[in-house]
Amino acid sequence: MNPWKDFKGKTWQEKIDVRDFIQSNYTPYEGSDEFLSSATARTTVLKEKYEELLKKERENGGVLSVDPDRVSSLLSYPAGYLDKERELIKGLQTDEPLKRGINPFGGIRMARNACEAYGYKLSPNIEENFRYKTTHNDGVFRVYTDEMRALRKYGILTGLPDAYGRGRIIGDYRRVALYGVDRLIEEKKKDFRATANNYMSEENIRVREELFRQIEFLGQLKEMAAQYGDDISLPASNTLEAVQWTYYAYLGAIKEQNGAAMSLGRTSTFFDIYAERDLKNGVFSESEIQEIFDHFVIKLRMARQLRTPEYNELFAGDPTWVTESVGGMGLDGRTLVTKSSYRVLHTLYNLDTSPEPNLTVLWSTELPENWKKFCAKTSLDTSSIQYENDDVMRPLYGDDYGIACCVSAMKIGKQMQYFGARCNLAKVLLMSLNGGRDEMSGVQVGPVSEPMNSGKLDYEKVKKRYFEYIEWLAGVYVNTMNIIHYMHDKYAYEKLQMALHDTAIERLMAFGAAGISVAADSLSAIKYASVTPVTDESGLITDYVTVGEFPKYGNDDDRVDFIAKELVEHLYDCLTKTPCYRGARHTLSLLTITSNVVYGKKTGATPCGRKAGAPFAPGANPMHNREKNGALASLNSVSKLCYDKCRDGISNTFGIVPATLGKDKATQTENLVSVIDGYFANKGHHLNINTYTREKLLDAHAHPEKYPNLTIRVSGYAVRFGVLSTKHREEVLERTFFDRL
Amino acid sequence: MNPWKDFKGKTWQEKIDVRDFIQSNYTPYEGSDEFLSSATARTTVLKEKYEELLKKERENGGVLSVDPDRVSSLLSYPAGYLDKERELIKGLQTDEPLKRGINPFGGIRMARNACEAYGYKLSPNIEENFRYKTTHNDGVFRVYTDEMRALRKYGILTGLPDAYGRGRIIGDYRRVALYGVDRLIEEKKKDFRATANNYMSEENIRVREELFRQIEFLGQLKEMAAQYGDDISLPASNTLEAVQWTYYAYLGAIKEQNGAAMSLGRTSTFFDIYAERDLKNGVFSESEIQEIFDHFVIKLRMARQLRTPEYNELFAGDPTWVTESVGGMGLDGRTLVTKSSYRVLHTLYNLDTSPEPNLTVLWSTELPENWKKFCAKTSLDTSSIQYENDDVMRPLYGDDYGIACCVSAMKIGKQMQYFGARCNLAKVLLMSLNGGRDEMSGVQVGPVSEPMNSGKLDYEKVKKRYFEYIEWLAGVYVNTMNIIHYMHDKYAYEKLQMALHDTAIERLMAFGAAGISVAADSLSAIKYASVTPVTDESGLITDYVTVGEFPKYGNDDDRVDFIAKELVEHLYDCLTKTPCYRGARHTLSLLTITSNVVYGKKTGATPCGRKAGAPFAPGANPMHNREKNGALASLNSVSKLCYDKCRDGISNTFGIVPATLGKDKATQTENLVSVIDGYFANKGHHLNINTYTREKLLDAHAHPEKYPNLTIRVSGYAVRFGVLSTKHREEVLERTFFDRL
Repeated sequence: MNPWKDFKGKTWQEKIDVRDFIQSNYTPYEGSDEFLSSATARTTVLKEKYEELLKKERENGGVLSVDPDRVSSLLSYPAGYLDKERELIKGLQTDEPLKRGINPFGGIRMARNACEAYGYKLSPNIEENFRYKTTHNDGVFRVYTDEMRALRKYGILTGLPDAYGRGRIIGDYRRVALYGVDRLIEEKKKDFRATANNYMSEENIRVREELFRQIEFLGQLKEMAAQYGDDISLPASNTLEAVQWTYYAYLGAIKEQNGAAMSLGRTSTFFDIYAERDLKNGVFSESEIQEIFDHFVIKLRMARQLRTPEYNELFAGDPTWVTESVGGMGLDGRTLVTKSSYRVLHTLYNLDTSPEPNLTVLWSTELPENWKKFCAKTSLDTSSIQYENDDVMRPLYGDDYGIACCVSAMKIGKQMQYFGARCNLAKVLLMSLNGGRDEMSGVQVGPVSEPMNSGKLDYEKVKKRYFEYIEWLAGVYVNTMNIIHYMHDKYAYEKLQMALHDTAIERLMAFGAAGISVAADSLSAIKYASVTPVTDESGLITDYVTVGEFPKYGNDDDRVDFIAKELVEHLYDCLTKTPCYRGARHTLSLLTITSNVVYGKKTGATPCGRKAGAPFAPGANPMHNREKNGALASLNSVSKLCYDKCRDGISNTFGIVPATLGKDKATQTENLVSVIDGYFANKGHHLNINTYTREKLLDAHAHPEKYPNLTIRVSGYAVRFGVLSTKHREEVLERTFFDRL
Repeated sequence: MNPWKDFKGKTWQEKIDVRDFIQSNYTPYEGSDEFLSSATARTTVLKEKYEELLKKERENGGVLSVDPDRVSSLLSYPAGYLDKERELIKGLQTDEPLKRGINPFGGIRMARNACEAYGYKLSPNIEENFRYKTTHNDGVFRVYTDEMRALRKYGILTGLPDAYGRGRIIGDYRRVALYGVDRLIEEKKKDFRATANNYMSEENIRVREELFRQIEFLGQLKEMAAQYGDDISLPASNTLEAVQWTYYAYLGAIKEQNGAAMSLGRTSTFFDIYAERDLKNGVFSESEIQEIFDHFVIKLRMARQLRTPEYNELFAGDPTWVTESVGGMGLDGRTLVTKSSYRVLHTLYNLDTSPEPNLTVLWSTELPENWKKFCAKTSLDTSSIQYENDDVMRPLYGDDYGIACCVSAMKIGKQMQYFGARCNLAKVLLMSLNGGRDEMSGVQVGPVSEPMNSGKLDYEKVKKRYFEYIEWLAGVYVNTMNIIHYMHDKYAYEKLQMALHDTAIERLMAFGAAGISVAADSLSAIKYASVTPVTDESGLITDYVTVGEFPKYGNDDDRVDFIAKELVEHLYDCLTKTPCYRGARHTLSLLTITSNVVYGKKTGATPCGRKAGAPFAPGANPMHNREKNGALASLNSVSKLCYDKCRDGISNTFGIVPATLGKDKATQTENLVSVIDGYFANKGHHLNINTYTREKLLDAHAHPEKYPNLTIRVSGYAVRFGVLSTKHREEVLERTFFDRL
């Protein structure tokens, strides 16, 4: 059978163009969720087997087992199965479910420590093999300046991907299903030949070496699938193969790279084209198609990377960010919602709630009402969905972008991101007041200036000084990122993922800021109240006495909201003054994931009244307990931040007590749709929605065994509440759960 | 004792500046050779021990032994000795004399094949260790285009350093003696800090990573010397230490890199400053100082690299190019000849003749007469010296340059070279006539054009076409070199050698041309005689019918000499049109080493009457048996080639029957001085001088055992005649030995 039988369109046949395939063939769906099928018997068995393993993993301290004797790659392990008889979608990262592999290319010490943390010893053979091998980490630390080391050590630049895979690169895994690997190799060979006549600049040489390795790893991908008895050299011919081929491609990527966030892309509407054809031709029933989705999602939930405890402290809950973007609108005005968009969300019912895959609804006010309600209802039932504003992203990224990690949009297969963690805006403020000294240790970390340590602080002087320090920091930040990504390309290049991108790639370099609400509120306090520093005997400011009222971010008050807005825009503008490695474009995010706790721990008392060491609000969120004007006022404040200067995303994590939205589920659903529509119509970018009561969380905090799958959205991703550390759980309990709109 | 006691000057104390130290402290010597001492008893024992090993090495097929179990580097082997009791200068490349180490960083296959060629098996551990390691060779062949592979395969670009260490990088080994390693580390750390505030461009990141590794390997150098009981963290305090410290630095370099040519630099006048101080203070006698030089030279003669048989076919006689540049004039008009210049040449008497170290006299017409005569006499006695024109190089390179390999000048410690083998000018001519097809195989290798395969060749048309093909080739050649050196920096960077250079380095990229005499004579035949191609059934030109007389290069006839000159200048100008990697400056050489035989073998019949497969003349030499007007006419022809377009050197290998120069040694010496003076006054660049009769060589060819140390200068270096292959010996016998001036 011709695998492309009945498919329409020409462009996608002539060149690699998945979007054109989708646009030429997909069937928008505006109906309700009534067609959905529940879990089959074998799905339920699989689910139980997986949950049994999950329980063992939890009991075993978070890691079920480790293979310390092989370097993880596409062909390192024999075929492995969760349940060979029942599972429709084959393929494991190692030879046993939830067993974690070793990836020392980021850094041999990381691999060694991670093994040791879970009671394993990294194989002496691997240690020996890496004697002559430079890792990404080796390269980075060879080159870091003293200043960069200090900024890292004192928590001003934190979570830098200088010791692990960088992530936030979404391979266009669908290409394997649509074209088969042989066609992809052929196209890459064409690109290789096309670069032969170029001037052999360093960039052209590098690109050719990269293409060589991409082709090599596409070959290995075929071999990997062959271990499971599948020949993926040719296109997939039905829904099962389409999902399976796509999963093999994703599986190859996570075997080869331990990137912080290995996202999936935007697959459901792509798969829907196969599903529609198979339904029409009687190849599969609705129940069978749902079963394929369910089994696929079980496999995605099983993705694991071996991390060190320090990593887990920053990014709690063992996240893998298998982010799947669902829905959205097409450039031609048709919705991209299909029945398969429903099917993917429906796995949260068939398989219970779960943080992974990280389900991300691309929201537009133009979306079909049925779909909007289905999403809101699923949020109310599961708290497992995040929402991102398709109406602000579509004009920039078109209609075949996906979200990597939490909030980072990119055109699938056409853009990639140099990932970059974040700087601590609150600490930079304190440092600027302290003349460049770190307020916790007293060490001179930044440029020397006269400390502003006596008498009431003057807003204009503070702002000028602070903005100068931001300018200095922005330069070092870009330079630091340039080193990290130069070294990652040099020592740990993502061969397979990049093989599933266009060769002429657009690059983004993503910077980030933490502590925006603390910084804005502190500036507001200095401006509108009276703030006087308290110093120790060395003149170091260790605290502030703040007298009087001042407006606080999160209450829809322009006086402070515009301070936040100006601060972010200044940071972005400063970043763009230093060029990025390989011509990448600067982007900025307000996103902390769960590291708002660690950032807070490393930051002294702030003029806004926050105590030394207290957590920040996550992402772009207002500080807990300072939002006094209800849910909508808080959302309005955040939506004032300008996405155009913050294209890597503005993360807002939102909790609301369901009863606030109405008395019954139908009313709650309708009102939640209105809240989301309103926020996004105001150009808000991202919204995590949690709909628990604080009482339920307090109960889960006290009795975690009662709520094994309780999922909460934290900051661009979701976690099982029970696996968070006590400190993280306490911080979540501190967060605002709005009880009035 | 203060190691710098009595030394004058300030600049060299404040920053690394060996030239300033020399200029401030050296004692020019214009006297005769009467002061020289003969070999001591222990020197003679050492020499005999070495020659015994040399004999065993020869009997063992050219390689005494190999250590296939360790990767050669500074600290891979325990201390080794030739004769621990007697030797003044300590240090061996491996743990036993003449045992060769493995260096797989260039290419694991090369290392494997080289082991196997001599009956060893590369350790499975090393094979395994390099599984995750990319070698230089891997990198290069990932990126080469089909065209580059074809040019390499069909012998148009040959001897490319794409599978072994690149060589032609002279560490300023003297720095270790003058400053001690700690000071060098301190200075490199300063450079490292100075680059911290730069924009982190890729180049700045790379430089910082390189500096990190330089510092790391300087540390290893100290450890290596400590194995022999020496602390080289501080400066050398006398002649013995100065020579020993310098040798350790050189030894570290040849342990770490198997570069094609690992040259020594310009050390004798530097050492002389220590010798003068020690003589004055009664620390050492003249005999003791000569003994130090003799023992140093024995160690230099023992440098070995493990090569494949294919490499040996190109560069016959197992050369290592331990090139030492001697003499020359200072920019201030004082001669740089010192007593130690004599001492170094005198080792050829105390230790017998030898190809290594590759003794290179920097000749100026201004040199002291006594020195000129001493050199000429030594040439007459040993045929072991080459001469290069200090008067043309000094204006470009100053007075502290050295020769790397054969003829490549560079400022010591301030310039380095990206080494690059050569293109075959004769084959390009044949290819251009054949419309881009290779004349041996008929394969289309170059751009397609209409073949000039019928009827008498028209000079103007041929020249136009030929020059177009040279332009095309030059572009591919530069691009090929860019790939090679990008990959060498990436995968096999010379950490230690570059640690002994200034951080702000000037880079040269050296291109080369073979077959200049064949190409010039062929064009002359087309212009002045009648040349008609002979084709096979496919239209491929396989031979030429040349009728009539035509001027031949090597007879001081401008009609053809200017064709050669124009050809070289065109090639150089074309090369400069494509920029070199890392901003290197293009240079060009006319130098074949012994590969003129292999080039000839791969080249079809030429219009000048040379048969298919017949050897070329070496370097810039006229073809054998075409020089009919005597020695001076031949020298005049070569001296017309413009050094300014050929700054990597113009190699001329010259043989003269001693009797031609006069009846007795004194007359011969005087006349030889005149010949050299005349050639260099005419701006000739380089001269290898052989003074044997053909009868002696014929006898040595028939009875090699009678002449174990018979050294001949071949093309920029010297070899033991007896170790050449039969084919190479026959080619040497073909060469012109002038019997009239």
